[in-house]
Amino acid sequence: MTTTAAPSMRNGVDTATLFATLDAVKQAPEAAAFQFRAHNQWVSGTHSQSSISDYFGVGQDQTHERTFVFDADHPAVLVGTDKGPTPVEYVLHALAACLTAGLGNIAAARGVTLTEVRSTVAGDIDLNGILGLDPDVRNGFQQISVRFEVKGEAPAETLRELVEQSMRRSAVYDILTNQVPVSIEVDAS
Amino acid sequence: MTTTAAPSMRNGVDTATLFATLDAVKQAPEAAAFQFRAHNQWVSGTHSQSSISDYFGVGQDQTHERTFVFDADHPAVLVGTDKGPTPVEYVLHALAACLTAGLGNIAAARGVTLTEVRSTVAGDIDLNGILGLDPDVRNGFQQISVRFEVKGEAPAETLRELVEQSMRRSAVYDILTNQVPVSIEVDAS
Repeated sequence: MTTTAAPSMRNGVDTATLFATLDAVKQAPEAAAFQFRAHNQWVSGTHSQSSISDYFGVGQDQTHERTFVFDADHPAVLVGTDKGPTPVEYVLHALAACLTAGLGNIAAARGVTLTEVRSTVAGDIDLNGILGLDPDVRNGFQQISVRFEVKGEAPAETLRELVEQSMRRSAVYDILTNQVPVSIEVDAS
Repeated sequence: MTTTAAPSMRNGVDTATLFATLDAVKQAPEAAAFQFRAHNQWVSGTHSQSSISDYFGVGQDQTHERTFVFDADHPAVLVGTDKGPTPVEYVLHALAACLTAGLGNIAAARGVTLTEVRSTVAGDIDLNGILGLDPDVRNGFQQISVRFEVKGEAPAETLRELVEQSMRRSAVYDILTNQVPVSIEVDAS
């Protein structure tokens, strides 16, 4: 009888590093205090541009390998110039990406090889809210629906459980389904 | 004494079109039912890519002028490959962009010319939540702080009121500070 070590790399996740990171945070929980940031500059009308580069984590200032720059705008039907997606579409992308990243990690940790993951996230919004035309209509999404297509080397039920667990551990899912206190400070001149 | 018509363009916003759009929606409130979408595909590990193109609004299927494509990933300290910002950073960008777009529109509607708008949005997160190491720690942001720098041709108090009003009408601010029902469906094979 021979024993074979489980491979460290699965789904593009280095599970040895993943488990080592978990152990390291267990030893030093304060390393898990992160602050992420986006810096935005108005361009014109509804068009603005954010850069994402610096953050804090593992006890020190960090930077991404490069600065990521994103435009946001409204389309012409919403009196914009369509230079980028609307802000709310970025929220949908964030949810898809968060659930998918978690799925990759969790599948790797459980020894499940994934072969394909696709999702579509749709958010319904009634613009009578943000246009101020109906006080009974909220400004944001009334509901968001996510549809995943997951293929992998495990029974369908196991794959579904991976998505379930990713949802239970998703930062963006938590942000959207629970409340986050937001404070706004204005330096005007 | 002469009367001068207010200029239609201000802050890059065509206020005539803005008010005409408001009137049109008042006449046909069902035109304001929108659905936005993001389509995501897993690449490897925590890296995925979303494309944003199609949406529904003003009673019909619509497409952006081009397809917007975004990568999301975790940085190396979070066992990723840093091919894009983290999902939660996209949420911060979305909030900055939403408040800024609203500010541009509201200032234009009130006849205030803006000269510069910058903001930094910061979100604090304790990764003991998503790592599953502390059941008392939430997965998402514990708080988000926004700092605006606004310059324009109006008293500071007026400029601050514009940001206030933008916050009151912001879709993303509402999404983050209130709850959105999220449903997830999985097609596994």
